[in-house]
Amino acid sequence: MNELRIALIGLGAVGRAWARLVTERAERMQRLYGTRLVVTGVFTARHGAAIDPRGLDLSEVLRAYEAGNLTDLSVHPAPADGGTFVDTCPADVLVELSVLNPQTGQPALDYVRRALRRGLHVVTANKGPIALAYRELRDLARTQNRWLLFESSVMDGIPIFSMVRWGLPAAEIRGFYGILNSTTNLVLTLMEQGASMEEAIRQAQAMGIAEADPSHDIDGWDAAVKVCILANVWMDADLKPTDVDRTGIRSVSPADLRAALDRGHRMKLVCRAQRRPDGTLQASVRPEEVPLYDPLAQTKETEAFLCIESDSIAPLALVERARATPVHTAYGVLADVLQIARLPNPIR
Amino acid sequence: MNELRIALIGLGAVGRAWARLVTERAERMQRLYGTRLVVTGVFTARHGAAIDPRGLDLSEVLRAYEAGNLTDLSVHPAPADGGTFVDTCPADVLVELSVLNPQTGQPALDYVRRALRRGLHVVTANKGPIALAYRELRDLARTQNRWLLFESSVMDGIPIFSMVRWGLPAAEIRGFYGILNSTTNLVLTLMEQGASMEEAIRQAQAMGIAEADPSHDIDGWDAAVKVCILANVWMDADLKPTDVDRTGIRSVSPADLRAALDRGHRMKLVCRAQRRPDGTLQASVRPEEVPLYDPLAQTKETEAFLCIESDSIAPLALVERARATPVHTAYGVLADVLQIARLPNPIR
Repeated sequence: MNELRIALIGLGAVGRAWARLVTERAERMQRLYGTRLVVTGVFTARHGAAIDPRGLDLSEVLRAYEAGNLTDLSVHPAPADGGTFVDTCPADVLVELSVLNPQTGQPALDYVRRALRRGLHVVTANKGPIALAYRELRDLARTQNRWLLFESSVMDGIPIFSMVRWGLPAAEIRGFYGILNSTTNLVLTLMEQGASMEEAIRQAQAMGIAEADPSHDIDGWDAAVKVCILANVWMDADLKPTDVDRTGIRSVSPADLRAALDRGHRMKLVCRAQRRPDGTLQASVRPEEVPLYDPLAQTKETEAFLCIESDSIAPLALVERARATPVHTAYGVLADVLQIARLPNPIR
Repeated sequence: MNELRIALIGLGAVGRAWARLVTERAERMQRLYGTRLVVTGVFTARHGAAIDPRGLDLSEVLRAYEAGNLTDLSVHPAPADGGTFVDTCPADVLVELSVLNPQTGQPALDYVRRALRRGLHVVTANKGPIALAYRELRDLARTQNRWLLFESSVMDGIPIFSMVRWGLPAAEIRGFYGILNSTTNLVLTLMEQGASMEEAIRQAQAMGIAEADPSHDIDGWDAAVKVCILANVWMDADLKPTDVDRTGIRSVSPADLRAALDRGHRMKLVCRAQRRPDGTLQASVRPEEVPLYDPLAQTKETEAFLCIESDSIAPLALVERARATPVHTAYGVLADVLQIARLPNPIR
């Protein structure tokens, strides 16, 4: 039996779903992969932290979280800050699910960097570190001979990174396009059905899709961050979100949507990246009128769509037919952890 | 530098495309994975065979094939039958691309069995062995600690098996549905545009899509074979094509298609497999009326569509937006070979 010791940061909706999933799937993971996951430490920003080198009981962790504080579960004095937790928790893998500042990528970026420097494998669901510092972190992971995995950072219902890593070896990704932000796609769908943008945003907020301040989505930043991640990981780019030619949907009106429909088109916030003949990258996020028969136009509400173009196979399209829930995101994180368990020595 | 010695059976369109791809990608495979592929033997049914333990020059192999016979390239007397070739060619991997009898799976099934018994890894693009004998071959491969890989056997434009193997660990596949036969889908598309079935089949034959005897496609056998493969590999089933509840499109008329359209539906040859509550499997191939807004209805001409349902993520749909060419099929075979090069010791 392989034991993989895990330091977990973050017990938000995804972190808690992950803890439940690890418990529910324990028997299956042992049977299929001979792997036992032992969570040796949990750090939260507002509910304390706990470390137990023999492994914490995740049901107790979840109960303590509900009751307000994890500290009583700790057999050592629990560290007061996340950085110290990353540096000292006895572990093989950092599972990083902290709440992210999307502009700075912090504190996730520091946690990931410190964990790799210390020689831990890292799994994160956070977009920030990968969008802002992928090249540095990838090189650090290679130097340390550790995995840096982030399946749930983009299209977290679908294992796109695993698919490309294992299914498209020695292939060159020439470009991709898709719909990667669910808030704007839902808002456009609702506006097409007659709502004003303000009404559509309020409705998306009531559904728990849009943030209280929706500008990160509406202005196209979230989509730009995702374009950076895919381009940096798959096309060896070194883009920052500010490098993406970005227009959000703020100036799109219901009249624009109706006029597009009259022309047999639908307006969508489309993400694109394409290698130019000179080798540089063209990356954009902007509202586009797409023909109704196009799969982009058929991606509705909170669905997502991605088409990958390579030098090796026909264009490959993936559709996420329902918005990913925290359980789906947590599963992507677990899949990454299992890859580390199955292949403790990273390979290219 | 890792060297992987390959015995190749078959120089049809896919085999020749594979040989060209191996040559073109040699530098990339060495740079990315430190792998050099050495083809030590090639066997064909009608163009002779050649063995050279130091490695054959694939450009010379292709020229000799065009000229009619490979035998002059052989440094040993070339074996007269495929079975002896599999047993004696000095190799680590059998790449099996023979012409298949879809009813018996032969001779591919024998080649795969003999290669695994001998302790070779096996990569095949043939559906027969996997549809007819997956459980036996899988168990044999496990006993021998060798890979049995078949990415190009279904939806060969898209790495579905790699995606599930690496991206959905410890997940339970509950079912799938899709459109997996390009000939019938093209025929239905053409009939909807006004052709009779006979005309549509002739047109599909002229395009090189339909076989001279199209009954294997039209009667749903090819689709049933693919359903078996996916169910056997992903759902631990032990289905034979005759176990699939199968109705082809032979009795579908242009009037049926028009009547469906009048009801806002489109008739498609839909593949389905679903776990029943009692644990058994319901598998079918049959014409179904699907609503026009459904992605199944939007899969046109020679496109393919597959939606996978699991206990772990939201339904995941994959679309092959163009018919796979022999080069795409060959690439899937190469991707399998590279997985063996990257992970010479198979893992679950």
